[in-house]
Amino acid sequence: MTYCIAICVNDGIVFASDSRSNAGVDYIRTCSKMHRFCWPGDRVIVLLSAGNLATTQAVVNAIQRDLDDPDAEFNLLKAKHLFDVADYIGDLSLKEQQHHGPALEKGGGSAAASFILGGQLSGKEHGIYLIYPEGNYIAASTDTPYLQIGENKYGKPILDRVITVESSLNNAARCALVSLDSTMRSNISVGPPFELAMYTRDSLEEPRQLSLKLASPYYKSLQKSWNDGLKRAFTDLPKFDWE
Amino acid sequence: MTYCIAICVNDGIVFASDSRSNAGVDYIRTCSKMHRFCWPGDRVIVLLSAGNLATTQAVVNAIQRDLDDPDAEFNLLKAKHLFDVADYIGDLSLKEQQHHGPALEKGGGSAAASFILGGQLSGKEHGIYLIYPEGNYIAASTDTPYLQIGENKYGKPILDRVITVESSLNNAARCALVSLDSTMRSNISVGPPFELAMYTRDSLEEPRQLSLKLASPYYKSLQKSWNDGLKRAFTDLPKFDWE
Repeated sequence: MTYCIAICVNDGIVFASDSRSNAGVDYIRTCSKMHRFCWPGDRVIVLLSAGNLATTQAVVNAIQRDLDDPDAEFNLLKAKHLFDVADYIGDLSLKEQQHHGPALEKGGGSAAASFILGGQLSGKEHGIYLIYPEGNYIAASTDTPYLQIGENKYGKPILDRVITVESSLNNAARCALVSLDSTMRSNISVGPPFELAMYTRDSLEEPRQLSLKLASPYYKSLQKSWNDGLKRAFTDLPKFDWE
Repeated sequence: MTYCIAICVNDGIVFASDSRSNAGVDYIRTCSKMHRFCWPGDRVIVLLSAGNLATTQAVVNAIQRDLDDPDAEFNLLKAKHLFDVADYIGDLSLKEQQHHGPALEKGGGSAAASFILGGQLSGKEHGIYLIYPEGNYIAASTDTPYLQIGENKYGKPILDRVITVESSLNNAARCALVSLDSTMRSNISVGPPFELAMYTRDSLEEPRQLSLKLASPYYKSLQKSWNDGLKRAFTDLPKFDWE
């Protein structure tokens, strides 16, 4: 399993992902699910991936293959809109799934994969898209400015309580980490290191990057502070009238 | 959908359930998912139900039918152990599902239902059981002293952070309400009123009961206090080193 999240606020975009990959419970790997494609001053594109690891790696390989081919019909550098890129990735993903899906399904497996795409092209608005396994996609809205893929439920309540488009980039990043932490505690198939990328709107520069292990001082202090804060909030809850 | 939870602590048992039932998004009903069977001084049995409403109502009807029949091979009054009751309810549920399941499956529906059973029989330990749609069941453990049915993920992180077997009955009840509140915010198919029953270990008395609507003063103050506490915990999180 996997948990990835992107939050699109007025100030920019936060991307966060865990790094655990598993085929059954007895074959656990650590691998990045965050893929960055940056041409400073022109375009910044970040892709988060969940689902079948072979499918998601094949999609990233196909993106690179097209980038290296000056005659490619379309590639990340030829895109005029971010939603063109969403369309393209949906097509690549579907094609890959159709290639290997039937063989996988025979063994009870699945080639399905989903993606979050985000970033900004020069002269356009920044944005994020969720690309479904079927290849179609949706954008985030100003009312629900985040998108999730993978194990999304455990970490959703805190996002619903805290995040608005007015949230600062730093607060959105902290909230993404808390959301990942809550998910990791409830689901062993989600695990560190947690990768974080923070893109500042209109900068068209490489996002700020952070990789947090369990032992990272910042992650440890965040975990402790959140746990203590929650326990305090719980202790402060109003008593029943019979107490 | 539904969300029900039972927490079994040293001091007793807390049961909590939402009251929303839906067949599709355009047919929403409010109905209790908590069923109490009490013979003070002898036995206290509480049943929480999730899944197909016709199945769960048929199981409760069958329980009553057997109670009214002095010649019944088994009923709640003839049980010697709480796990005998779990066995019995699993059988009733499976029988009902086998009766109506095939017709429902033709229309893409399902007769599946799950239950949480809890309580105490005179001279025995108090306990809780989760009864699966297949009719088999598990008990809670001292390490994970709660069981959930229905939409269980959104409300799980707070339980994992707060609940132990040493938690007081009042704290367990507050935690169950926070867990329901978090679930309701993230899933519209879970809704109030929230029913709460608190059974004091070895009392063999009717559990204390509470039904909380959104407008109930206690629920409103709990919601506000928790929301404020969470926001405070969030505001207090450590800053990144570049801030």
